[in-house]
Amino acid sequence: MTEYRKERDFLGEKNVPVDAYYGIQTIRAKENFPITGYPPHPELIRGFGYVKKAAAMANQKVGILNSNIATAVIQAADEVIEGKFNDQFIVDAIQGGAGTSFNMNANEVIANRAIEILGGKKGHYLMVSPNTHVNMGQSTNDSFPTAIHIAALHLAKGLTMSLEQIITTLKGKEEEFDDVIKMGRTHLQDAVPIRLGQEFGAYRRLLERDLTRIKQSVDHLYEINMGATAVGTGLNAKPEYIEKVAGYLSDLTGLPFYSAENLVDATQNTDAYTELSAALKVHAINLSKMANDLRLMSSGPRTGLNEINLPSRQPGSSIMPGKVNPVMCEVVNQVSFQVIGNDHTISLASEAGQLELNVMEPVLVFNLLQSLSVLQNGLSVFREHAVAGITANVDHCKQLVERSVGIITAINPHVGYETASRVAKEAIDTGRSVREICLERNILSAEELDEILDTKEMTNAGIAGSRFLF
Amino acid sequence: MTEYRKERDFLGEKNVPVDAYYGIQTIRAKENFPITGYPPHPELIRGFGYVKKAAAMANQKVGILNSNIATAVIQAADEVIEGKFNDQFIVDAIQGGAGTSFNMNANEVIANRAIEILGGKKGHYLMVSPNTHVNMGQSTNDSFPTAIHIAALHLAKGLTMSLEQIITTLKGKEEEFDDVIKMGRTHLQDAVPIRLGQEFGAYRRLLERDLTRIKQSVDHLYEINMGATAVGTGLNAKPEYIEKVAGYLSDLTGLPFYSAENLVDATQNTDAYTELSAALKVHAINLSKMANDLRLMSSGPRTGLNEINLPSRQPGSSIMPGKVNPVMCEVVNQVSFQVIGNDHTISLASEAGQLELNVMEPVLVFNLLQSLSVLQNGLSVFREHAVAGITANVDHCKQLVERSVGIITAINPHVGYETASRVAKEAIDTGRSVREICLERNILSAEELDEILDTKEMTNAGIAGSRFLF
Amino acid sequence: MTEYRKERDFLGEKNVPVDAYYGIQTIRAKENFPITGYPPHPELIRGFGYVKKAAAMANQKVGILNSNIATAVIQAADEVIEGKFNDQFIVDAIQGGAGTSFNMNANEVIANRAIEILGGKKGHYLMVSPNTHVNMGQSTNDSFPTAIHIAALHLAKGLTMSLEQIITTLKGKEEEFDDVIKMGRTHLQDAVPIRLGQEFGAYRRLLERDLTRIKQSVDHLYEINMGATAVGTGLNAKPEYIEKVAGYLSDLTGLPFYSAENLVDATQNTDAYTELSAALKVHAINLSKMANDLRLMSSGPRTGLNEINLPSRQPGSSIMPGKVNPVMCEVVNQVSFQVIGNDHTISLASEAGQLELNVMEPVLVFNLLQSLSVLQNGLSVFREHAVAGITANVDHCKQLVERSVGIITAINPHVGYETASRVAKEAIDTGRSVREICLERNILSAEELDEILDTKEMTNAGIAGSRFLF
Amino acid sequence: MTEYRKERDFLGEKNVPVDAYYGIQTIRAKENFPITGYPPHPELIRGFGYVKKAAAMANQKVGILNSNIATAVIQAADEVIEGKFNDQFIVDAIQGGAGTSFNMNANEVIANRAIEILGGKKGHYLMVSPNTHVNMGQSTNDSFPTAIHIAALHLAKGLTMSLEQIITTLKGKEEEFDDVIKMGRTHLQDAVPIRLGQEFGAYRRLLERDLTRIKQSVDHLYEINMGATAVGTGLNAKPEYIEKVAGYLSDLTGLPFYSAENLVDATQNTDAYTELSAALKVHAINLSKMANDLRLMSSGPRTGLNEINLPSRQPGSSIMPGKVNPVMCEVVNQVSFQVIGNDHTISLASEAGQLELNVMEPVLVFNLLQSLSVLQNGLSVFREHAVAGITANVDHCKQLVERSVGIITAINPHVGYETASRVAKEAIDTGRSVREICLERNILSAEELDEILDTKEMTNAGIAGSRFLF
Repeated sequence: MTEYRKERDFLGEKNVPVDAYYGIQTIRAKENFPITGYPPHPELIRGFGYVKKAAAMANQKVGILNSNIATAVIQAADEVIEGKFNDQFIVDAIQGGAGTSFNMNANEVIANRAIEILGGKKGHYLMVSPNTHVNMGQSTNDSFPTAIHIAALHLAKGLTMSLEQIITTLKGKEEEFDDVIKMGRTHLQDAVPIRLGQEFGAYRRLLERDLTRIKQSVDHLYEINMGATAVGTGLNAKPEYIEKVAGYLSDLTGLPFYSAENLVDATQNTDAYTELSAALKVHAINLSKMANDLRLMSSGPRTGLNEINLPSRQPGSSIMPGKVNPVMCEVVNQVSFQVIGNDHTISLASEAGQLELNVMEPVLVFNLLQSLSVLQNGLSVFREHAVAGITANVDHCKQLVERSVGIITAINPHVGYETASRVAKEAIDTGRSVREICLERNILSAEELDEILDTKEMTNAGIAGSRFLF
Repeated sequence: MTEYRKERDFLGEKNVPVDAYYGIQTIRAKENFPITGYPPHPELIRGFGYVKKAAAMANQKVGILNSNIATAVIQAADEVIEGKFNDQFIVDAIQGGAGTSFNMNANEVIANRAIEILGGKKGHYLMVSPNTHVNMGQSTNDSFPTAIHIAALHLAKGLTMSLEQIITTLKGKEEEFDDVIKMGRTHLQDAVPIRLGQEFGAYRRLLERDLTRIKQSVDHLYEINMGATAVGTGLNAKPEYIEKVAGYLSDLTGLPFYSAENLVDATQNTDAYTELSAALKVHAINLSKMANDLRLMSSGPRTGLNEINLPSRQPGSSIMPGKVNPVMCEVVNQVSFQVIGNDHTISLASEAGQLELNVMEPVLVFNLLQSLSVLQNGLSVFREHAVAGITANVDHCKQLVERSVGIITAINPHVGYETASRVAKEAIDTGRSVREICLERNILSAEELDEILDTKEMTNAGIAGSRFLF
Repeated sequence: MTEYRKERDFLGEKNVPVDAYYGIQTIRAKENFPITGYPPHPELIRGFGYVKKAAAMANQKVGILNSNIATAVIQAADEVIEGKFNDQFIVDAIQGGAGTSFNMNANEVIANRAIEILGGKKGHYLMVSPNTHVNMGQSTNDSFPTAIHIAALHLAKGLTMSLEQIITTLKGKEEEFDDVIKMGRTHLQDAVPIRLGQEFGAYRRLLERDLTRIKQSVDHLYEINMGATAVGTGLNAKPEYIEKVAGYLSDLTGLPFYSAENLVDATQNTDAYTELSAALKVHAINLSKMANDLRLMSSGPRTGLNEINLPSRQPGSSIMPGKVNPVMCEVVNQVSFQVIGNDHTISLASEAGQLELNVMEPVLVFNLLQSLSVLQNGLSVFREHAVAGITANVDHCKQLVERSVGIITAINPHVGYETASRVAKEAIDTGRSVREICLERNILSAEELDEILDTKEMTNAGIAGSRFLF
Repeated sequence: MTEYRKERDFLGEKNVPVDAYYGIQTIRAKENFPITGYPPHPELIRGFGYVKKAAAMANQKVGILNSNIATAVIQAADEVIEGKFNDQFIVDAIQGGAGTSFNMNANEVIANRAIEILGGKKGHYLMVSPNTHVNMGQSTNDSFPTAIHIAALHLAKGLTMSLEQIITTLKGKEEEFDDVIKMGRTHLQDAVPIRLGQEFGAYRRLLERDLTRIKQSVDHLYEINMGATAVGTGLNAKPEYIEKVAGYLSDLTGLPFYSAENLVDATQNTDAYTELSAALKVHAINLSKMANDLRLMSSGPRTGLNEINLPSRQPGSSIMPGKVNPVMCEVVNQVSFQVIGNDHTISLASEAGQLELNVMEPVLVFNLLQSLSVLQNGLSVFREHAVAGITANVDHCKQLVERSVGIITAINPHVGYETASRVAKEAIDTGRSVREICLERNILSAEELDEILDTKEMTNAGIAGSRFLF
């Protein structure tokens, strides 16, 4: 049977499990918000740990926080950073109140742990008070955003590392497939030849831009609003404290945080998040296009394009023996859809800010951190279990090119669009090859055709056989 | 040189072109909202014509509008319905103010035309006043929504007719292609045989549900809030008038309008629009999936699936002779994307209602009416220029099925999943046929295989060759 | 130390923890998809339990499943329905492969439990095979959608019950506040008087439509595609089995399931989900508007509108003593944003269906079931902790009305728009009351004003003081 | 009666109005795509003019285009740039085919005008051929994206100028309102004092970031793919031509264009557009939040917050005399919703790219250019007709602050959170002031209270009355 301690606030009294590090505010939030069943992201908890530690250090330094208490709070915050109390963060990921309940939960856990460290019993807040001591010089409205920044930056770092890895893998494929000539397609219709390596080069280049964009988009997250307190005016926060806290945070996290030029702005606006989410969305769109291409090129094996092979990762059907599906690409599509939908929620939440605060931050941060995580997770397995193992069906690619009519484009500069069109039409209607028809009709000589219809040549800029031109 | 007349309101004075039927309020709106450059949708203008006519009839009937004026207003409204004054509706599709400027524009045009009819000069509002007479018993907050309802219902009618036509066309194809056996694909990988007619039957059935949904989703539009006036309480609107105006509107439009049970609700909420837009979105998603399928099946001609042919509508390339693209499908995809994006804007606008009114209606109605129009337009050409002319490459479809390994599934109940898997693997690895391997390994007899591997049989429910089973 | 058993499939061998009910396919999926860290929704697991039980019953009945095995499978499925094996469903909510891994996980758990029941050891699939026996006559492509339908319908039932409850609560408030006269506002600007009860009546009516819409939107979910097998053609599924399985499912769940008219359609299309999600989205938009209104009306206490009071649920600030925020409304806004964003992901996933299948179903169902859950959870606490406890600041509401100029609208029919405008302007400029000015300027008598400016009267349809009119 | 000339292509023959500069391809497109009724954006037409001019210059320079023809084409293109032929661009904004019809339309107009210049008759394509000469060395797949880049950059320039102007205006307001003390609000609940100038400073700072983001986001548009031809391999485009054409385009437009490093990538990917649209979306979100704030602060005049006044732009009601609404803010909200919805369509279109091309570009560019235009238009009138004329109700702001309880936060550091909470509660319950209660209960002296409750002081960082602290 659970034993309880009683805790009070100005709205009344609540029972708190006697062993719990959280307190009455957390209990209230737990009751109020049984929404998703998901706790806060572990990186957000760590973020709070850093915030509370840095604040305690700054408050101690400027002389308004007693050293004994400060030391205990700092140690407790360290343990939060290490993840020791993740199970004590029990308020729902989606909650009212601008993250107040996250902050209260953090304050209570750290206060109770600090009390313990100082030899007291949980709940004896006269020793260390969640609000007066752990939250000193802070408001939810500055400590929560700062914790979000830390969490988002940590996750973004992981994501960019995964992106760098897959770019390297793609670069390898670009080289490996440099001489695989295959049919290029526009509108899903046969166009002109291209090299498989060129296609992978396009994916590589695309993700390079994504990488740049994501890196760029986190820049505003280094700007934090610690010391803004309630509305950004800094009421009850000493200027010396404001100066110091950003410095401590940078030291602790290794991230170059600095205090926002305009704390009122930094407290009410959430564009740093929408900017990051937008970059993630653009990346997700690109990833999805790329996954679609790979699924298309690996379609078959007998009745699809069958140009490339993806590694077999799992039997694909509970009913069709031998079937293997492009599951790693499919999960990437789905991760992308998740991220794009999340961006939508984030946009709605951001637009709903009012006056001095955006109270919709919990749902915003839930989606933002999820997007960062699922993208990294998705990229990582996509690279390892799909992209790295792709092989080309070189001969089949070659046959398709040779069978196609699209190579007609190369004879265009030599015979004119009109004549070329007639040849093309005949080829399509009769199923015969462009070369055959040109020879039979004396449109071009075998020697000219050898040079002009060199498919490898067609994959580079220039007019093939231009020495025959004038 | 344009000549002007002066008009006044409580904010001051403006010049109005002497020939203009619109007046000072329209001029103000024109100055305030140079946003899209698009005028209101013609059906919205017609909608206002009906509203003003019905209101004048009702006001005359209940004895508060002088008969001379009423007659002139009714004639003027009729001319608006006929589209004679479309060029006088010059306020931008996107504008502030809950459509007040649309309503003011309508009131002014009708007042000035009525003045003319009565022998007066434009601008002599003592004869017929835009606000006192044309707008009698009305507010923008009831007349604008009602005009939207009329416009949306007219457009929805056109859309559902187009849907019915394409469903008929698809039904024809379903029958035409009933015996075309082709490879079914899941995950873009070879699965088991299916008939092309079955695929078109699935499209047909899907669009039938869309049709039902769209028809169902306009039901709430028959509920109108005429008489709600400013906030739905009906202040300054006589109950008799409220009763009559819905009746007149029904008579005039042939649409079964009725007065909302709760006028306060009907004035502030816009869920009738979001509901319709949601149905359009669901339809757009389905259309896009179908267009994608058709593009995929018609891919080639030489290096794609090449199972069906779409009618050639236009040369597809300025550089590649003979290329023809699936442009009608592509435009359907794009129409779908437009409608899905519009639904997003509509949702944002709807959510932004506050208290007694949703002032974001102009952008909402701009997107809603556009969605209805582009869907109808898109469906109509899609049917005529694409779906109706689709032909099947019967032999190629057959060859693909025969070449495939997917038919292995049919031998499953006869030899077990394990054995079937081994045969499948060997077939894929060696490129040999399932039949060949089964025979060689004495897994099944030729007689059994003839029956079990009958591809037509595979496209119907049941276990092929079940007489061999026990 | 974990002990393992070895399992094999046609791609190779894997270690499976010796106590695990899941098997090699689940292990593969676990390795392939470490995406969200979230397991499937418990209701989806239950859904699979029902599907597998009904299939076993039908297969036994038509004589292709041995009774011993059938009995064991049915018992195992029952235990899945009871939630006994929820911890054995370990594949990620977002995964490749159209839910194949969910289905494989279910097949393995049930097979191993059935083996146990029959006295065997986990992994001895010769006794009961996940594919041959548990999945008999099924494919992922029919069993997964059917499980989704069951899950969605169960959750929708909970949601509609919560909606019904809040509608009742709102109805109570509508009556309770029927005589609270307050200022109506359009464009956030003072308009004309309204009763607080009328406002709650509008919310009530709005949610009634939502309820109808949601109920209507689940109708297509009763149509299931059991027996469709791989692509909807029913290959390897006996017609008698197809008939029976829907009946058994209806009996087991109490939901009126029936077999789809067109199984090919039912297998590849996901509009039943987008339709439901669209209805949820429309509801979310409406909820958010309503929550916004309540936050606005309860703004203050001293410097906002302060017309109503929401129950105090938790201290609202870690820095501002005594502050209490409208957290229950805020969480409703956020739930709404989540649902709207989810609808976006669902739409993307639905549009990405290709040919015979939509492989994006896992992300779709993750979002759909989440939307259903968070809406129900949100509504439930919103009703209990916010709506039910709302009180009105009757006197303050009354003072605001009396202070306002908006009541001028009622004198309109008596003195004309022109004169009324002059009075309004003077009132606004000088801060004096409409009544005062009318009296002073002899525009209307005290007796007339008493009747015309009766604010209660203004909240009903009609022209106040109309007996003075002619 | 319209006279016609006959034109032919490989699909057949069409009548073209004899005076038309467009030709058969345009006619085909007109028939195929009667979708929106909107022509291409004028800036897109100009973009094509620049592209065709630069291409002709480069082709002439590298010696493959005859000088006579080149000169005529260049002159014709110049006239297109000047807008002389806008009425000849008649293909619909939404169309199939990756913009092929736009390009064909441009080629035909320029060819026919060039023919005229050279003394020929329209339609005599042997003189100047749309495909062979005007389109020389080009494909739709490079010329259309390049035209889009030019159009988008021109519009973005206008937008950033408008943004710079409104930032300046906001800066002026920030200074003007620097000493207007008002109540800060979080959660729409009374928080602590802030200065109106600080709020405008936050808007200013926010838009400065938007400006930076938008400027940054157009950077990738300087990278063009002229010479990529069909799929990016540069087939039929001489390397010298590729080099020159970017140079000419830069000279002609004054924009620093350069040839893409990877033409295959640049031809198939559309992330440059999604990146720009994402930046516009983030800006739209911010604008909408700001417009919402202004509408909230100007709510009233009698029954709202009434802290600021917006300029009166138009009578706001057809029924309520004297009512004036915040229409300029409302139109900004709506512009924002439009842009956010457009971003959605753009994302869908971008994701739908396949292999070597994204055929969904027409709908993408329709929405992108519209977003740029409506944002600029909206910002411009918002600045001029709303922001520039905002005035503050200084006294009312002051009274609200004095009436509030939120100032209690400042006494926190002096008396502790507990005591402060008790005072706050009493103040709220009794309606008495914080000062009064503190004095009566001897909590703080009058001298202390004078300093601590100095509301101006509260709007700056620090602890008021900190000299009393220790």
